[in-house]
Amino acid sequence: MDQPSSTPLFDQVDNPDDLKRLAADQLPGLCDELRSVILDTVSVTGGHLGSGMGVVELTVGLHYVFDFKRDRLVWDVGHQCYPHKLLTERKARFHTLRQKGGLSGFSNKWESDYDAYLMGHAGTAASAALGIAMGDHMQGKDRHSVAVVGDAAMGCGVAFEALNHAGSLEDVRLLVILNDNRWSIAKTVGALSRYLNKLRSGSFYNRAKDAMHGLIQSIPLVGKDLDARLGDAVDMVKNMVAPGHIFEELGFRYFGPVDGHDVGEVVGALADCKRLDGVTLLHVLTEKGKGVPGSEDRYDRAHAAKPQKKPAAPKKPEKVPVEPAVLPPVVPMTKPGRAWTTWFGESMDKLATADDRVIAITAAMPDGTGLMEFRDKFPQRFVDAGIAEQHAVAMASGLATSGMRPVCAIYSTFLQRGYDQVFQEVILQRLPVVFAMDRAGLVGEDGATHNGLYDIAYLRCMPGITLMAPKDGPELCEMLEFALTLAGPSGIRYARGNAPTRHELPGWSGKHQPIELGRMEPLRPGRDGAILAYGHMVQTALEAAALLDKRGVHVEVVNARFCKPLDEDGIVELCDRHDRVVTLEDHARIGGFGSAVLECLSAHGPVRARVQVMAVPDDILEHMSRNQVIEHCGLTAEDVAARFLAERPAPVERSLGVSG
Amino acid sequence: MDQPSSTPLFDQVDNPDDLKRLAADQLPGLCDELRSVILDTVSVTGGHLGSGMGVVELTVGLHYVFDFKRDRLVWDVGHQCYPHKLLTERKARFHTLRQKGGLSGFSNKWESDYDAYLMGHAGTAASAALGIAMGDHMQGKDRHSVAVVGDAAMGCGVAFEALNHAGSLEDVRLLVILNDNRWSIAKTVGALSRYLNKLRSGSFYNRAKDAMHGLIQSIPLVGKDLDARLGDAVDMVKNMVAPGHIFEELGFRYFGPVDGHDVGEVVGALADCKRLDGVTLLHVLTEKGKGVPGSEDRYDRAHAAKPQKKPAAPKKPEKVPVEPAVLPPVVPMTKPGRAWTTWFGESMDKLATADDRVIAITAAMPDGTGLMEFRDKFPQRFVDAGIAEQHAVAMASGLATSGMRPVCAIYSTFLQRGYDQVFQEVILQRLPVVFAMDRAGLVGEDGATHNGLYDIAYLRCMPGITLMAPKDGPELCEMLEFALTLAGPSGIRYARGNAPTRHELPGWSGKHQPIELGRMEPLRPGRDGAILAYGHMVQTALEAAALLDKRGVHVEVVNARFCKPLDEDGIVELCDRHDRVVTLEDHARIGGFGSAVLECLSAHGPVRARVQVMAVPDDILEHMSRNQVIEHCGLTAEDVAARFLAERPAPVERSLGVSG
Repeated sequence: MDQPSSTPLFDQVDNPDDLKRLAADQLPGLCDELRSVILDTVSVTGGHLGSGMGVVELTVGLHYVFDFKRDRLVWDVGHQCYPHKLLTERKARFHTLRQKGGLSGFSNKWESDYDAYLMGHAGTAASAALGIAMGDHMQGKDRHSVAVVGDAAMGCGVAFEALNHAGSLEDVRLLVILNDNRWSIAKTVGALSRYLNKLRSGSFYNRAKDAMHGLIQSIPLVGKDLDARLGDAVDMVKNMVAPGHIFEELGFRYFGPVDGHDVGEVVGALADCKRLDGVTLLHVLTEKGKGVPGSEDRYDRAHAAKPQKKPAAPKKPEKVPVEPAVLPPVVPMTKPGRAWTTWFGESMDKLATADDRVIAITAAMPDGTGLMEFRDKFPQRFVDAGIAEQHAVAMASGLATSGMRPVCAIYSTFLQRGYDQVFQEVILQRLPVVFAMDRAGLVGEDGATHNGLYDIAYLRCMPGITLMAPKDGPELCEMLEFALTLAGPSGIRYARGNAPTRHELPGWSGKHQPIELGRMEPLRPGRDGAILAYGHMVQTALEAAALLDKRGVHVEVVNARFCKPLDEDGIVELCDRHDRVVTLEDHARIGGFGSAVLECLSAHGPVRARVQVMAVPDDILEHMSRNQVIEHCGLTAEDVAARFLAERPAPVERSLGVSG
Repeated sequence: MDQPSSTPLFDQVDNPDDLKRLAADQLPGLCDELRSVILDTVSVTGGHLGSGMGVVELTVGLHYVFDFKRDRLVWDVGHQCYPHKLLTERKARFHTLRQKGGLSGFSNKWESDYDAYLMGHAGTAASAALGIAMGDHMQGKDRHSVAVVGDAAMGCGVAFEALNHAGSLEDVRLLVILNDNRWSIAKTVGALSRYLNKLRSGSFYNRAKDAMHGLIQSIPLVGKDLDARLGDAVDMVKNMVAPGHIFEELGFRYFGPVDGHDVGEVVGALADCKRLDGVTLLHVLTEKGKGVPGSEDRYDRAHAAKPQKKPAAPKKPEKVPVEPAVLPPVVPMTKPGRAWTTWFGESMDKLATADDRVIAITAAMPDGTGLMEFRDKFPQRFVDAGIAEQHAVAMASGLATSGMRPVCAIYSTFLQRGYDQVFQEVILQRLPVVFAMDRAGLVGEDGATHNGLYDIAYLRCMPGITLMAPKDGPELCEMLEFALTLAGPSGIRYARGNAPTRHELPGWSGKHQPIELGRMEPLRPGRDGAILAYGHMVQTALEAAALLDKRGVHVEVVNARFCKPLDEDGIVELCDRHDRVVTLEDHARIGGFGSAVLECLSAHGPVRARVQVMAVPDDILEHMSRNQVIEHCGLTAEDVAARFLAERPAPVERSLGVSG
């Protein structure tokens, strides 16, 4: 891999028109070259590797057969679109993947006319493509609408809703491609995957077909009556034995399965499907991570790659001059220490050992949420619901109803998908379900779809929920333990990356204060103002205080711990003791922890302090490193310190909410 | 119906134990009596009629076969549980249905041990019942878990997710009853309903079975090879021809369809299913509104009944003494005038006539959202997505992508179900989708599941969305027209019941001010404070101002119009001009319009006024009439006026957020 491979075919292809000029027998060679370019680049930039490597032939086929400058292509999730980006006028910028100002790691309509959507959450591509197809039909636009959906995403409720709807429509032309690689990020779960496995192997159907064929051949045709009955039976068997029966019952024409790594077969199947009206499903078999060394038996290993610590020189820099601005040095993402996720997994282990009612639930993220060891140790008390957050939450409520103590480990941004089940199945039932919201706050390279910026806003309004955020790893353990003592629902948010350990928090005495419902924790005194920080931003607050100490300004730092119930008395007292209080959080400015503080103060009446909210601005944030996006949002320790140094309070950004 | 029917069997049954003492041949008579009791009562109280009337035999069968004091029964949606309530120790209070302090109109775990859940949103029963079954298994609790799911709810994504998961599990015992009446509130849509229709008629399968049978009978069995092949074929045909093939493929044992109005058949099928381990689906055919006069051909007419204007005497008051507190007089719910929904429907008609890109989308609520005439007039531009809000929103985004101007008419509380699609498919794409949020605010008799109290909180944090609420019917039309001129997403919230028309607003000059992005509308001057009201609460504000005029206190009233973008300059100026400003809204106190005002003021720095937020307290609100719940929440004109009369500002309730 050190020596960039030669890529004579790829060098001729900048866009789909170039691709169409290649002969069909040149396509396999192009596919090989694409794989080597992706491997070379992603090993430097990091990113989602397996999904894209699996759809190289499919992507080449799609652009060979359709014209997606005009036709519309919706990639479900969108992290499989690296080969698509390479074929659609973005090869020169491909090495800037996931970097500030560079290409995003997902499909992104703001990046290219070839991308219909900015996607990062699974399951919605068929709905979106159906909407496009319906609108095109209404407006007389004669173009094709294609969705590429993974087999795991096909288990999302919304994907079923889309097929159920599309299959009942007339006059709509839609092609759904089922990209069947048997993996989401973990192995695909659910009965549908077992069904797909049956289609995949084909053995059942082939055996049945053969049997019927032999049977029919052997029958002497006697009499008109038997003849008619035979005709009936043959029709029936033809209908019933056809693979893809479930999809046919839902109203789709089913084709496949085709070998997704035989580009000729893919091109042929796509060309056939393109000629059809109505709604069509093409079942393509692929291997996630195809061509990634060592990933043959463990596709999850190929899901995402971390950047090499020392970035290699970008590929072919002599051909592709790049502005320095789009190629910043790769900044190490995480502070030294252990990941929040690791703290979570270890706590769960401890808690489940102590209480056999404790059960862990994930929605297709056993590894991402740190539950792999838990899964091995407590297989009976680990549930992977698949990419089905709605169901995961409603099922958790049933588990709580039966007397278990479920902990739902779902990324903050993905819990949005189960919002109504949080409301009806958990909040209204006042059930003790714990939501462990991983990746809350700014996540960095994954960008807008993966930032978890809204969980406080959408959960704080729910009656009876307890919401917390820990300042460090040990506090996450304590909060989890505390949450399991509550009679009602609760949520704990924590960030991507490494958690500070207790002794690492600068300037803090380290004196332990046990968790108490709705009580904040003062960490250090100061007479020149106060920072009231929520969650991991406590560390930033302490760093800011240390910076200010050097300037002779001494601020109090308080760890809020709870955003619901708030420590109302403590907050009022704090705001009466200081001239200036800054609230600090890694959440959207609108409706977050700061708003909770303002609501509390409004209800109490005038206090001495001017209160300022420091939080994430009201905007869609592009992908960049986590440190870069924190800087972009003005949430560094330096930014916080500046609030206490300025002659007058720095103006808080005013958003009109129409940033685009 | 004036003369209460005689109910000798029902009189013997207060609970399921009483029911079990009846002989099997007495059950049909009991069912007849239950129907007449429901009809007699609901014609007085109002409520959901059709669903309950359709499941009388099923309910009797369930309680005859299972023991739901111990076994767990989850009713999907829960509005079909009137017969269930009558059989489970609630007959004496049945006439208090949907009244303050009386029985709720849905299943309600706070009301009875026989109800596993408080439900009002569709599709989640199978998930919840599965969770219970899993938890019971883990804890060694040997009891049954049963979910009753309507055919329309089976089209919800979350229901598919639950079946997909359950069908892949071993060691779990779960019974899902598919209550197939071919209706949600409108006629069930989608390909699944067509499939169920096929199962229902049985014709295809019966024909195929007959044909195969005849075929096999006629074959001379020659040779071992053919014999083996025949065995294969027969097995295969048996598997493939079995009705309920989709459910069997998903891993369920399928039984049915059974006649849901033959109580003997229902009891037999339930008893069979009860003996089975694993996951089982029982397909029961029922008629929604069975026994409701005049509903034979239009089940939607039977969905809900309005109370008679003059309540008849409660049935059998001499047998059922009732505390006066639980039988308040029926208060007329709505002010005279036209419903918000009617204003919406008419505006849509006008806008679609003017612009052929305008398209209306509903999620199984064509009537409830006022779109019946639109549907008839613009059948090509009307889409009913079924009870599939996730898909409805993602599809709307596709329609907008293709150049259409979709208006999604979804109740505020049900938009929660499509929250993540609002985020990813609409907000991140910055697409011009308009969300028309009907039933926003307090809805009254339908209670906690149907109140739309969180839409401001969960939408205001989304970047780039415009959020509005009209003060009266004409302003709803103007706002819809304005929303369709925007390049990005928007939401308009309006209430249940009747809208004030412009001239009805007390004390307002009626001078028209056109809608301008992010600008509020001053309605009347006053020197003694100001009320800044959002949406239909403007009328309450004007009424409060009129009350205050009589006491010599003159307050300014401002129609906020926008909660995003806020009229920041206008608000700061208002708050600098007065000593006291009250914000007023029909939304949760946490994260609502008032919080937006507080955030704005915090960013600007000190103002003269003390600002108080008047909104819905942070609690789960029981069902009662709309006027009663408004009073309960302290949001009447009198309550607002009192804020300006008290010597000191009345204390705003402080919630610790742990109200239960």
